[in-house]
Amino acid sequence: MDGNTIVGLLAGFCTTVAFLPQAIKTWRTKSAKDLSLGMYSIFCTGVVLWLIYGILISDLPIILTNMASLTLAFSILYFKLSFKN
Amino acid sequence: MDGNTIVGLLAGFCTTVAFLPQAIKTWRTKSAKDLSLGMYSIFCTGVVLWLIYGILISDLPIILTNMASLTLAFSILYFKLSFKN
Repeated sequence: MDGNTIVGLLAGFCTTVAFLPQAIKTWRTKSAKDLSLGMYSIFCTGVVLWLIYGILISDLPIILTNMASLTLAFSILYFKLSFKN
Repeated sequence: MDGNTIVGLLAGFCTTVAFLPQAIKTWRTKSAKDLSLGMYSIFCTGVVLWLIYGILISDLPIILTNMASLTLAFSILYFKLSFKN
């Protein structure tokens, strides 16, 4: 694996795993008032499209990272819709 | 442009532009209590790495979309650090 690939993998790891502290925080506080419903709706749509794109071009890294992203972003969207405050 | 490329571009557009309603909401309400500092710190780091990756492999779509993402995500991180409530 060359240096460029390592930078790319590290980049994908960060932008995917970033949603974990938000999901944990929202779950713990049960407060999602400041989270934008628009953001998580558009983001989840985008991640589903990335997943379809990964399947269309048979790219395993795109498929796997976006499955992880979708799980996290969809959890936050669910919390936003569930917690009324 | 083939169908796959259109799906990929639409995916990238959604996951980038998704941060715009969050940035607008946080700016308007001046409230960032529910936003995770960890999320935006890790996410901004990841987007900077994507930008470096795009420059390393000379990929213009990666460079341009991540410049837009960085502007939006960094604004939200700045709001999180600025608005104390």
